[in-house]
Amino acid sequence: MKIKNIFFKKKKHISLTQIYQILGLNKNLKKNTKIINIADLHNASSNDISFFNSIKYLNVLKNSKVKFVISEKKHLNIINNYCHPIIVKNVFKAVSLITEIFYPNSLNDAVDFSLSKVNKKKYTKVEFGNNVLLGKGVKIGKNSIIGHNTLIESNVHIGDNCIIGNNVLVKNTIVGNNVRILDGSIIGKKGFGFFPDKNLNIRYPHIGMVIVGDNVEIGCNNTIDRGSLSNTIIGKNTFIDNQVHIAHNVKIGNNCIITGQVGFAGSSTIGNNVSIGGQAGISGHLKIGDNVQIGGGSGVIKNIPDNSRVMGYPAKNIRFFLKENK
Amino acid sequence: MKIKNIFFKKKKHISLTQIYQILGLNKNLKKNTKIINIADLHNASSNDISFFNSIKYLNVLKNSKVKFVISEKKHLNIINNYCHPIIVKNVFKAVSLITEIFYPNSLNDAVDFSLSKVNKKKYTKVEFGNNVLLGKGVKIGKNSIIGHNTLIESNVHIGDNCIIGNNVLVKNTIVGNNVRILDGSIIGKKGFGFFPDKNLNIRYPHIGMVIVGDNVEIGCNNTIDRGSLSNTIIGKNTFIDNQVHIAHNVKIGNNCIITGQVGFAGSSTIGNNVSIGGQAGISGHLKIGDNVQIGGGSGVIKNIPDNSRVMGYPAKNIRFFLKENK
Amino acid sequence: MKIKNIFFKKKKHISLTQIYQILGLNKNLKKNTKIINIADLHNASSNDISFFNSIKYLNVLKNSKVKFVISEKKHLNIINNYCHPIIVKNVFKAVSLITEIFYPNSLNDAVDFSLSKVNKKKYTKVEFGNNVLLGKGVKIGKNSIIGHNTLIESNVHIGDNCIIGNNVLVKNTIVGNNVRILDGSIIGKKGFGFFPDKNLNIRYPHIGMVIVGDNVEIGCNNTIDRGSLSNTIIGKNTFIDNQVHIAHNVKIGNNCIITGQVGFAGSSTIGNNVSIGGQAGISGHLKIGDNVQIGGGSGVIKNIPDNSRVMGYPAKNIRFFLKENK
Repeated sequence: MKIKNIFFKKKKHISLTQIYQILGLNKNLKKNTKIINIADLHNASSNDISFFNSIKYLNVLKNSKVKFVISEKKHLNIINNYCHPIIVKNVFKAVSLITEIFYPNSLNDAVDFSLSKVNKKKYTKVEFGNNVLLGKGVKIGKNSIIGHNTLIESNVHIGDNCIIGNNVLVKNTIVGNNVRILDGSIIGKKGFGFFPDKNLNIRYPHIGMVIVGDNVEIGCNNTIDRGSLSNTIIGKNTFIDNQVHIAHNVKIGNNCIITGQVGFAGSSTIGNNVSIGGQAGISGHLKIGDNVQIGGGSGVIKNIPDNSRVMGYPAKNIRFFLKENK
Repeated sequence: MKIKNIFFKKKKHISLTQIYQILGLNKNLKKNTKIINIADLHNASSNDISFFNSIKYLNVLKNSKVKFVISEKKHLNIINNYCHPIIVKNVFKAVSLITEIFYPNSLNDAVDFSLSKVNKKKYTKVEFGNNVLLGKGVKIGKNSIIGHNTLIESNVHIGDNCIIGNNVLVKNTIVGNNVRILDGSIIGKKGFGFFPDKNLNIRYPHIGMVIVGDNVEIGCNNTIDRGSLSNTIIGKNTFIDNQVHIAHNVKIGNNCIITGQVGFAGSSTIGNNVSIGGQAGISGHLKIGDNVQIGGGSGVIKNIPDNSRVMGYPAKNIRFFLKENK
Repeated sequence: MKIKNIFFKKKKHISLTQIYQILGLNKNLKKNTKIINIADLHNASSNDISFFNSIKYLNVLKNSKVKFVISEKKHLNIINNYCHPIIVKNVFKAVSLITEIFYPNSLNDAVDFSLSKVNKKKYTKVEFGNNVLLGKGVKIGKNSIIGHNTLIESNVHIGDNCIIGNNVLVKNTIVGNNVRILDGSIIGKKGFGFFPDKNLNIRYPHIGMVIVGDNVEIGCNNTIDRGSLSNTIIGKNTFIDNQVHIAHNVKIGNNCIITGQVGFAGSSTIGNNVSIGGQAGISGHLKIGDNVQIGGGSGVIKNIPDNSRVMGYPAKNIRFFLKENK
């Protein structure tokens, strides 16, 4: 399912000529080629621009309809088989530069000054606590409850029968029905992604959202960052305890149970029916299968196949872990 | 010490006939037997109903005065020796159903809409910051201080000479004298307990409280969940650092030192004079003795006897840990 | 660079006679010797009083100009070589007692009741969200932004072009230019330092500050405690993710990258260009060199030399860790 991004104003299109200029490239170009958007290979449409930075994504490249792909020299020949390569020295900096052109406001989202007190005539079927502030275009479904001092930034959608607790901050997020987000949680802040530089790290845009499925519960003092180019996703009926940190682009499946103080580094994908014990950590860019059980305190640094039970640091088959530690 | 639960309205009594109906059981019953409350075996009085789900609690069963005990078939003969068994397929679901009947409001406690601005005439010996909201029936002792933006929900008791910081949320909690609860902490939220279900997890009532002893300090951004049927307890003069998570039913003794980012899974009991280093995790349903020292980063998955020093994941005698890791 | 402490009112001076009285010592003294301040050996000037509690600091002692040094009997002969020893049973209790005399308000800083709504005439070049409260003497540079519900306590300095998010609490802190402190973070609270005592732990004053360098980013729901006698320092261009805990007196260098849920125990020093993976923990009083990389989930319990890559619990050379765990 593709959900329209309603949080960041996008330029209608940029010409390919302009993109080459931004990237400092100089080439004979078909004039007037219009690029509509920038997206990762999973999501790019035929008139978008995308990028390829690891052979891991070869199959995605093969199946993509995208015509222009940013990459490094070493991938030139591969890409030539499928579409038009745009070769740069640093793929991520190039992507960042173009994203910033498409989404000019995406770097300045720290505080939403359009927030104001609730206009109760507009939300007749919602119950609000004191000192709630809402941004423009916020939608909240019927029979939902918003706790005291909570901030909901512009264009956030919250479904029916939801409970948003006290002191919560929600931004750049689409919340399903029957969801609970408990006190002190911060949902939809930009991720911890930037280009390190000795004098002044360079931030790049995070134009993704957080998508929270129906029947989810998010505990207290959690931080769930929005995606950079893709979205951060919490699947249906997944329950999350307190003080959990979920970094940008993480995708968690349905019916998962995530216990207190668990942390997810960026861009990992977690299957359905996964349970994770307290304080476990999941490294970035991993794939955790369905029905996986991860013991408390584990440090997961490799992919985990479906139906596995693991524990330890680094995490291994739980029988080995317990045997080695008798 | 038994502290009266002032947070959840209880029905005066339910008939045993009604309980059998709720559980879908069909039996010839002495009519008119009134059950006053539901409680665990430690706390159940003779006219209450209780439950037995592990042979670990045999001694507690033997010494209990309770007459009706919910359990599974495999425990039938044991229970018959001491009281009247009520046999069900799933003890916890049965307990949950009955708790909900006794405490009909206990599942809807996410936001207290009775909160309002401080009536300073009522609290003449308390100093309040800006934007403090108090629920009905809140008691605060003399010379106590409540910081800015703090929320104290209905019926919470706070003793004398306490300091509650800024942005704190306190609910379902009894706080002793000379206690400090620092900024951003959330005390008394329901625990992370529910019945997993593929389509819609089922919440059960958490009717316990948090009991905070005299002279306790609770640091910033902590989460301390209230008990489900019993209480979460922080013993006298125990000091807790920042970002600690304490799950439901945990009982921490006196004079403990709990360092930053430690996590406790549910229902563990910690002795007196226990010190726990940063980021250590304590699994659920464990018993940690008195005078135990747990090194930073440890993962404790077994009971620990009095006077031990442990470290590691899983935690072991600290000498072994250091020797193995020279 | 020595930064003047603007947060705690200091008595102009105390006589040495008075200091001996406070410590319960009885000696023939040169009358009228005035002591100006108490400081650690690194920072003490010739008219201050300092303390010596470990042979580790011998070189610092040698190079110090301080004339009076509190210590224990076992160090008497060493100190006699360089300055005048004041011998006590418990160095830290003695230091605490004297600090409290010099800084009489330093133990009561939990809530700043001088906070009030923003006087926008005073801060014409700053943009404020709703419900912001500022203390007395707060300075905020031009083009800075302060989010909703944020509290900035008395005498805090914030530089130009800063973004302070929503629900942030800043106290006893000096913030450079172009700094971001994101939502829910608590900066400058007192550290978790006290003298354990069976009946009533004894708090000691924390008169240090937090110093945040230019271009720093501090993520959401962090806790950064101020120093006790020295300062907690975050070096220039260091970026910190969410849910990180930094205890008192920690000094972090420039250009570091600290990922989510990392924890630092007190008084450790981190070099420049250090990167630390998620959930790693750094024990207290350690020295981590420049250009060090610490893997996610590591538990660092020893000093780490420059240019090392470590991982594991306890942390070791990353090649050994990966080899042992293949």
